[in-house]
Amino acid sequence: MGVLDSISGPADLRRMSDEELTQLAAEIRELLICSVAANGGHLGPNLGVVELGIAIHRIFDSPRDRIVWDTGHQAYVHKMLTGRANDFGSLRKEGGLSGYPSRAESEHDWVENSHASTSLSYADGMAKANQILGRDDHVVAVIGDGALTGGMAWEALNNIAMGGDRRLVVIVNDNGRSYTPTVGGLANRLTEIRTNPKYEPALNAIKERLQRGRFAGPAAYDALHAIKKGVKDALAPQGMFEDLGLKYIGPVDGHDRQAMEHALTQAKRFGGPVLVHALTTKGQGYDIAVANENDQMHQANPFDRETGEATSVAPAGWTSVFRDEIVRIADERPDVVGITAAMLYPVGLDAFADKFPDRVFDVGIAEQHAVTSAAGMALAGLHPVVAVYATFLNRAFDQVLLDVALHRCGVTFVLDRAGVTGDDGPSHNGMWDMSMLQLVPGLRLAAPRDGAQLRELLREAVAVDDAPTVVRFAKGAVPDDVPALERLGVADVLSRDDDSDVFVLAAGSLVRVALEAADIARQSGARVTVVDPRWVKPFDPAVVELAARHQLVVTVEDNGRQGGVGAAFTQALRDAGSDVLVSVHGVEQEFLDHAKRDVILDRLGLTPQAIADDIVARSARNKPGTARR
Amino acid sequence: MGVLDSISGPADLRRMSDEELTQLAAEIRELLICSVAANGGHLGPNLGVVELGIAIHRIFDSPRDRIVWDTGHQAYVHKMLTGRANDFGSLRKEGGLSGYPSRAESEHDWVENSHASTSLSYADGMAKANQILGRDDHVVAVIGDGALTGGMAWEALNNIAMGGDRRLVVIVNDNGRSYTPTVGGLANRLTEIRTNPKYEPALNAIKERLQRGRFAGPAAYDALHAIKKGVKDALAPQGMFEDLGLKYIGPVDGHDRQAMEHALTQAKRFGGPVLVHALTTKGQGYDIAVANENDQMHQANPFDRETGEATSVAPAGWTSVFRDEIVRIADERPDVVGITAAMLYPVGLDAFADKFPDRVFDVGIAEQHAVTSAAGMALAGLHPVVAVYATFLNRAFDQVLLDVALHRCGVTFVLDRAGVTGDDGPSHNGMWDMSMLQLVPGLRLAAPRDGAQLRELLREAVAVDDAPTVVRFAKGAVPDDVPALERLGVADVLSRDDDSDVFVLAAGSLVRVALEAADIARQSGARVTVVDPRWVKPFDPAVVELAARHQLVVTVEDNGRQGGVGAAFTQALRDAGSDVLVSVHGVEQEFLDHAKRDVILDRLGLTPQAIADDIVARSARNKPGTARR
Repeated sequence: MGVLDSISGPADLRRMSDEELTQLAAEIRELLICSVAANGGHLGPNLGVVELGIAIHRIFDSPRDRIVWDTGHQAYVHKMLTGRANDFGSLRKEGGLSGYPSRAESEHDWVENSHASTSLSYADGMAKANQILGRDDHVVAVIGDGALTGGMAWEALNNIAMGGDRRLVVIVNDNGRSYTPTVGGLANRLTEIRTNPKYEPALNAIKERLQRGRFAGPAAYDALHAIKKGVKDALAPQGMFEDLGLKYIGPVDGHDRQAMEHALTQAKRFGGPVLVHALTTKGQGYDIAVANENDQMHQANPFDRETGEATSVAPAGWTSVFRDEIVRIADERPDVVGITAAMLYPVGLDAFADKFPDRVFDVGIAEQHAVTSAAGMALAGLHPVVAVYATFLNRAFDQVLLDVALHRCGVTFVLDRAGVTGDDGPSHNGMWDMSMLQLVPGLRLAAPRDGAQLRELLREAVAVDDAPTVVRFAKGAVPDDVPALERLGVADVLSRDDDSDVFVLAAGSLVRVALEAADIARQSGARVTVVDPRWVKPFDPAVVELAARHQLVVTVEDNGRQGGVGAAFTQALRDAGSDVLVSVHGVEQEFLDHAKRDVILDRLGLTPQAIADDIVARSARNKPGTARR
Repeated sequence: MGVLDSISGPADLRRMSDEELTQLAAEIRELLICSVAANGGHLGPNLGVVELGIAIHRIFDSPRDRIVWDTGHQAYVHKMLTGRANDFGSLRKEGGLSGYPSRAESEHDWVENSHASTSLSYADGMAKANQILGRDDHVVAVIGDGALTGGMAWEALNNIAMGGDRRLVVIVNDNGRSYTPTVGGLANRLTEIRTNPKYEPALNAIKERLQRGRFAGPAAYDALHAIKKGVKDALAPQGMFEDLGLKYIGPVDGHDRQAMEHALTQAKRFGGPVLVHALTTKGQGYDIAVANENDQMHQANPFDRETGEATSVAPAGWTSVFRDEIVRIADERPDVVGITAAMLYPVGLDAFADKFPDRVFDVGIAEQHAVTSAAGMALAGLHPVVAVYATFLNRAFDQVLLDVALHRCGVTFVLDRAGVTGDDGPSHNGMWDMSMLQLVPGLRLAAPRDGAQLRELLREAVAVDDAPTVVRFAKGAVPDDVPALERLGVADVLSRDDDSDVFVLAAGSLVRVALEAADIARQSGARVTVVDPRWVKPFDPAVVELAARHQLVVTVEDNGRQGGVGAAFTQALRDAGSDVLVSVHGVEQEFLDHAKRDVILDRLGLTPQAIADDIVARSARNKPGTARR
C-alpha cells in the first residue's frame, strides 16, 4: 500500500514528511500515466502540477479556502489529493469520475466549466463575497499562461488589482503552453524569464551593487527605488502586473515543492490580492510526454506507456478531411488565410501552417480576437477561415453578429466537434451553434453529411465574400460518403418514395441516422422522402416547397431543439404559408453528463428506431382522410 | 463662411496654417455643441478628440491609411473632417447622418459596431492583411482608456505586440472615463500619470543624474538600462506595454495639436506596432460638459446650450422603476449585490451604490467578467444582480450558459434597452436576448409589461437561488399599468371573450400593442383571449394548455422572430401534443437602420392594426368547419 492510498483528504498531506511527500509525487505521476494510458484523458497538464497541487493543499485549507482550477483538465492531481485517487479506474466513463472538477463529486470542487480563462473572474467574485460576508479565508485561482491570453483573464486581473485587502491568491502555472506554445507579447516575455537561468543570482548581484551606490538626498530614494524596480522588471514580468497594482511573487520553480510552499505562505500572509508566478514543465516526470513536441500529450487517447503510442488508431475523422482540403484551397487562393485560437493541431490547420507559415495565425485562447481580427482581414481584402471547436464559438457570438455579419465580411467559420461530443462533459458539447447562429442576419450555415460534402461545402463557403459562412461537423470518424439521388436547389435528395407523405430533413452527421429511420419506417408502410438541405441557413426555397407538399415533416439534427434547424425549418414553412405538421428531433436543451457520444445519442432518442417510431406514430394520427390542405 | 465649411476631405487640413487649424477646432466644437443640443447624441467624447482628430487626419492619409474609431460615438469630429460637416443637421434622424461611423456614408469609415473594445482586433487583422498583400500604408486605431478594460482589447494587444514590422498605430485616448471614471488597476495607474504634472521634468532630471553615475564594465550597461527603465516605469505605464513588447510613446497632451502631430509622426516612422498615449479631457472646450460630474455629457438628450439643461424632460422610464425597486430589495436583503459594466447611471444602479457603496461593483467595460464574477459571488453565498443593456449581454453568452447556468447559480440579469431601441443604430438594438437566452438550460426569463410588473417580477427573480433569472424591459417611457383579469399559473389573463377562438400571447412592452390589436380584431368579429405569460421561459403549462384549446395562436414580441418567444411557444405547444396554428409577430432577423423606435416598429408591422389584420385574415382561413382537432 502506497502513500497515496492513505490520503482521504488534504489534511493528511499536512502530516507527511518530506520523504513521504516525494514518494507521494511519484505515486501520483504513476497513477496519472496508468489511468490516462487506460482510459485516455489529459496527461501533460496534470504531470506538470503534481508538486504545485501538493503545495497548494498543504498551505491552504480546502474547502474552507476555495481553490479554483482554470480549464479544469489540470485538476486530476487535485482530485487525487481530495480523496478520489481510487476512482481513477472510471475516469471519463459514464457514471465514473469526470475529467473536470465536478461539484457532484466533491466539496473541494467549485467550477465545472472546461472553457479557459474563467477562474480569475470566479475568484474575484468569491473574494468580494467573502469580504461582504466577513469571511477571512482565502480564494486560490490556478491559471495557466495559456489561459492568460484570454480576454476574460485580463478583465479579471484589472478588477482583482482593485481588491484592497481581499484574500485572493492567483497562481500563474507557467508552462509556456496551451496545447501548443503560448503565443503573444506576454508569452514572449514569460519565455525570456523561463529561459534565463540566472534570474536569482543576477538580481542579487545587482542589488548588492546598488547598496554600494552613492546617491544622497530625497531624490536618492526615488532613484534607488527606480533602479530596483528596473532591475526586477528586466528579469520578471512584474512591471506589467505591478502597473496593474498587483503584488507579484516569483518566479518560483513549480517542481520544487518546498520553494512553492514558501512562496504560497508569503502570498497567504500578504493580506491582499497577490500573484504567484510558478514555472512548470508540461509532462514533467514522463519523458515521452515531455519529448512530444506537438502538445506534450496534452490530451491523449489510450496509449502504451512504454512507447507513448496510441493503442487504438482512431479512424480518419472529419478534422483530417478539413485539414487536407484547406491546404488545397490555400494553394489555389492566395487570399485565404487561417486563424486558430491556440488549437492549431486539434482543428487541423497544421498542414496549412506548415505549407504557408505566414498565412496562418494563432491568436491564443482568444476567440473574440480570432473573430474580429478576421473581420479586419476581410475588410482589407483577405478571406479568413477561422477554425474552432463549436463550443468555443459561443464565446464570440457578439463578434460574429456585429463585427462580421453587420459588416458583411466574407469570413468562413469551420466548427469542429459540433453536436454531441460526450467524454469531455457538458461544456464541450457543440449543441448550441446551429441555434445561436440562426440568429445572425445574413450568415449562411452548412452542415456536411460526409467527407465529400465537407470538401464541397467548404469550397462553397469560402467562395462567399459578402457574408459570414459556417461549416460545422461532428467529432470523430467521418462516415462513408452518402450519394445523392438528385440536387434540389442547393440541397440533396437522398432517398424518395413515389407519392411520399413523410418528408425527412436531416442535417450533418445525423443524415445516416435519418436514412436508416426512413428504411425502418417504410417497413410499416410509410412513404418517405429524405433530404439533406446541405445549407441549413438559409434553406433553399425549393426544399421548403417540397416539404410543404407532404403530410408530415420530420427534422433531425444533433443540435438543441430550441431554435435550431427544426425550429428554423418550421418557421420557413409557416412563412411560406404552409401549416404542415413538423416533428423536431434534436438535443433536449439540457446540460449533458459525460458519456460516449453514442450512449448520449441513444439516451436522447436520436437513433434510427426512435425516429422511425415517431414517423410511424405520427403518420397514423395524420391519415389522408384528415389531411389539412 | 468658416474654415470648417471649406473642408471637403482630410487633404484640405494639410494645407492649413496654425491659425486656421485653431479656428477650425473652435468651429468644430461649436458645431458639435449645436448639433447635439438640437438632436441629442454623444457630446463629451467628441469634444475631447477635436485636436486629436485633426492631428490624425493631418499625419495619416485616410482612406489609404485606415482609421478605426473604437466605440464609434467618438467619430463625430472624424465625420466633419471627412466632408460631412454640412450633414450634422440630420444627425441620428431616419435617413440622416448616423451617430456612428457608417460605410454607406463614407469611404473613410470602416467599423460601424458601437460596442466597445473591438478596434484593436480589427486593426490587427487589417495590419496582418496589409503585410500579406504587400501594402505599406498604416492602420490607426483610436481606443479610449475605458475600452481598454474590455478583454478583447487585451487579446488584441497581446497579438499586436507580435506584429514585427506591421504598420499599426494604437492611440490610447485617455480621458479617465467611460461613462463614469474608468475602473481597474490599469486605470488607477493611468490616473497617477494624468495627475502628475512633472512627468517630463522629472524624467529629464533623473536621466541627467544617471549620466553622472559611476558604474563600469558589462554589468554597468545592464544597470543603466535598468535604471532608465525603472524611472520611466515609475512615471508612465510603459512597463506594462513594454512587457508585452509594444513600443510606447507618451504621455502626450491630446489637446496640444502640435505635440500630438509630433508624436504621431514618430509613431508613423517607427515601422512597427506602436502605442501613443494621449491625455484628453472629456467635454473639453464646453465648461458645462466638463463640469458635469456624472458623465461629462457623454450622451445628451437635446439641451439648452447656455445652461446644459435638457430641453425636454423624458418621462420616467423603465430604468427609474428598476432604480427604485432594487434599492428597496437591497434594503431587505443584505445578500443582494449589484454589478455594472461601466454604466452605473444608465442602468440605474446609482441609487443602490449611493446607499450601499460596498455592495455595488463597477467592473469596467467587461461583460464577461461581470457575469462570471457574479457566478463566483453566487457560489460564495450572495445574490448578484447584473444590470446591463440587453445588447451587451450578447458579449457574455458563453459565461451565462456555462459559468452561471451550468453551475445553477442564482444570478439575476436585468436587461435594459431590450427590444428595438432605434436611434443608436443596428448594434444597440436588444433584439437577440430572448432568442439567445432561450438556449440556456434552466434559465428563467421574465418580460414585464409595465412598472408594476417590473417590480413584481424583479422580486420573483431575485427569490430564485438555484438558477439564472432574467428580467428584460424596453428603452424609454414605461406605460401605464395594465391590470390583469386573473392570474393563470404564473401568467396574467388580460382580456378574454367567451368562447374565444384566437389566443394572443404578448410579451413585455408589446402587451399594450397586442391588447389594442385584439380590440381592433374584435370589430371584425374575432373572439380573442390575450395573455401575458410574464415568464417567457419556461412557459407555465396552464398557458400552453389554454392556448391549445384555441383555433389560432398569435404571439407578439419585440425580439427576433427566430428562436424567440413565439418560436419557443410554438415548440411548447407541439411538445404538449397540440398542432394549433401559430402566427409569430416579432422583429425580422435583419439589422435595423437607425430611426425612432416607433418608426421601426411600424416598419416591422408591430402595430395594433397590422397584428389585427393578421388575426382577422387567419381566423377567416381557419374557420370552425375546417378545424384540425
